[in-house]
Amino acid sequence: MTHDHSHPHDHGHADLSGPTENPIMIEVTRGGMVESVHRGRACLVDAAGHVLAQWGDIAAPIYPRSAIAAIQAIPLVESGALDAFELGDSELALACASHSGEIRHTRLLEGWIKRLGLTAEDLACGPQTPTDPDSAADLIRDGEPPSVFHNTASGKHAGFLTTARHLGKPIQGYARFDHPVQQRVLGVLEQMTGQDLSRAPWGVDNCALPTIGVPLGALAYAMARLADPVDLPDARANAVARITKAWKAHPHLIGGKDSFDTRMMQASGGLVLVKSGSEGVACAVLPKEGVGIALKIEDGSARARDVALAALIRAANALTEEQWTRAADLLTVPLVNRVGREVGVIRTAEGWLSNGE
Amino acid sequence: MTHDHSHPHDHGHADLSGPTENPIMIEVTRGGMVESVHRGRACLVDAAGHVLAQWGDIAAPIYPRSAIAAIQAIPLVESGALDAFELGDSELALACASHSGEIRHTRLLEGWIKRLGLTAEDLACGPQTPTDPDSAADLIRDGEPPSVFHNTASGKHAGFLTTARHLGKPIQGYARFDHPVQQRVLGVLEQMTGQDLSRAPWGVDNCALPTIGVPLGALAYAMARLADPVDLPDARANAVARITKAWKAHPHLIGGKDSFDTRMMQASGGLVLVKSGSEGVACAVLPKEGVGIALKIEDGSARARDVALAALIRAANALTEEQWTRAADLLTVPLVNRVGREVGVIRTAEGWLSNGE
Repeated sequence: MTHDHSHPHDHGHADLSGPTENPIMIEVTRGGMVESVHRGRACLVDAAGHVLAQWGDIAAPIYPRSAIAAIQAIPLVESGALDAFELGDSELALACASHSGEIRHTRLLEGWIKRLGLTAEDLACGPQTPTDPDSAADLIRDGEPPSVFHNTASGKHAGFLTTARHLGKPIQGYARFDHPVQQRVLGVLEQMTGQDLSRAPWGVDNCALPTIGVPLGALAYAMARLADPVDLPDARANAVARITKAWKAHPHLIGGKDSFDTRMMQASGGLVLVKSGSEGVACAVLPKEGVGIALKIEDGSARARDVALAALIRAANALTEEQWTRAADLLTVPLVNRVGREVGVIRTAEGWLSNGE
Repeated sequence: MTHDHSHPHDHGHADLSGPTENPIMIEVTRGGMVESVHRGRACLVDAAGHVLAQWGDIAAPIYPRSAIAAIQAIPLVESGALDAFELGDSELALACASHSGEIRHTRLLEGWIKRLGLTAEDLACGPQTPTDPDSAADLIRDGEPPSVFHNTASGKHAGFLTTARHLGKPIQGYARFDHPVQQRVLGVLEQMTGQDLSRAPWGVDNCALPTIGVPLGALAYAMARLADPVDLPDARANAVARITKAWKAHPHLIGGKDSFDTRMMQASGGLVLVKSGSEGVACAVLPKEGVGIALKIEDGSARARDVALAALIRAANALTEEQWTRAADLLTVPLVNRVGREVGVIRTAEGWLSNGE
């Protein structure tokens, strides 16, 4: 994918020019030394498309993976499918989630699929061991194999099945790139990011859904429009408002009991909505500020992604210092060894956040 | 720690000058795009201290973690402790291992500790869930918590306990930096690397042992001296020969059934000895070529470490092309999603290995 930066800055499109070297964002210390470092690119964008801060190449595409689950859920609401099946905020939150396979997640999902008149066989995501270790151990103890409902993406898949069912589209193949439901999602992604994605690179996600390459800056812009949907058409603005309400109301359904996403949202008391994706991707929506954040750790690291996103949220002044005091271990993660001794930390690299625009 | 590069190149010391930018070594693809990349530094050194190839800053220190287990095992043999307790190649291999907690590992370890007249309580490494998922699931099914014998480093710890016992040193505190056994290991590390490490940075490993910062190039030099111990004093050369013999004879004890180390050594038919460490560190010993390899992935990634080490071993021409044909999935690792579809690969980045010296 190529980008033309010669055109003047249009209102409603993120200006994606800027430096292209990915700075060291995160360092991992042990004893007297920094042992490992993580580089990344990130930006903060407002709903008018202004880039408020940027690090690294924000014009190059990234695969958003499941960090755009909330955008992928727009057709579920906008099409009327959610209401037609009398589904609520809990199901909508699960459609925006990468859940951890806890019983509270799988029970909701089983009921949801039943309500559609479908079964586990209709979900195309494949089975997955729960990412919550306690739930994974419970399955082993019970002698049960993991099911599709334990797949972290099953809520998203249930959402697509609901939309397909409501629109009278085929259930078979709903996760494929050229299925009408996925093409509708692609259209929403194009509109929300302000990008022509017809020639964008794409790949297949671990859960079998397509993932489309989007410039990092455009992804942050889409998140800003979730934070401040004022420029969106009414139906889409209403759908976005319902989605962000469900996202905010159910932090535990979005991630899981020990997940960064859930803990970060709980710590913020609803001031921030976050969603991580695989390979070091994360997005945040700051409704009060009308700002979106997008982040990609160059090497795909999850530990760096979490600390870097917390640091970016802090840089945006979205939480009070008192809130950060209670969530200090999200900004500086202690590394504890097998005998309980703190042997190092994961933290923001010196000089990173002072080098933004 | 600072380094003085102004002195002339001494025979028997690796020349550690060179470029300091860490190149992109590994790329992770998905569909039509490279999704993530990993940078690192590495070098190939011979037993005379000649740097045969280098990438990135090889003068800066790294924590070798358990990649130097074979060096840490030298006092166990050299002191006569191994023979005094009538221990064999299996125990010696476990002292050089990061095993996966399979029953074949834990049984040997339990017998070894019993032979010393000690118990699980004397091991300072802490309990750890086996890194082999099948063995971890077995423990859950049996309702047994993981023990110190499942700790991946327990063989190394058993080795230190054996040395302490034999030398009449205290058992209590054997894993501490200032314990006579650890000080002896430090002395061996200084001699093998040709470095004064008295002011080296150090940290505490996950298994509670000290880990000492060593220049990457000096680490490769030490590995070369394991490959070709001709310049070592007789007692040390004999100890090294016994260690590399045990390392070569028991690839399954060094790692575990699905580990990279074990699979790489099995694929090489004994032509290469490898040992990975945490945070993206790996070493290799090429006995036939008399060459040592040291590698540090900048971000600490294990997936990048494994593919990069395989690529470096290939660059050293240590295996035949027929052997590589059977081990192709070590050089290019397929990424398979939850429904069994290949969605990308982990591979050597274009241009990396053509840019070495």
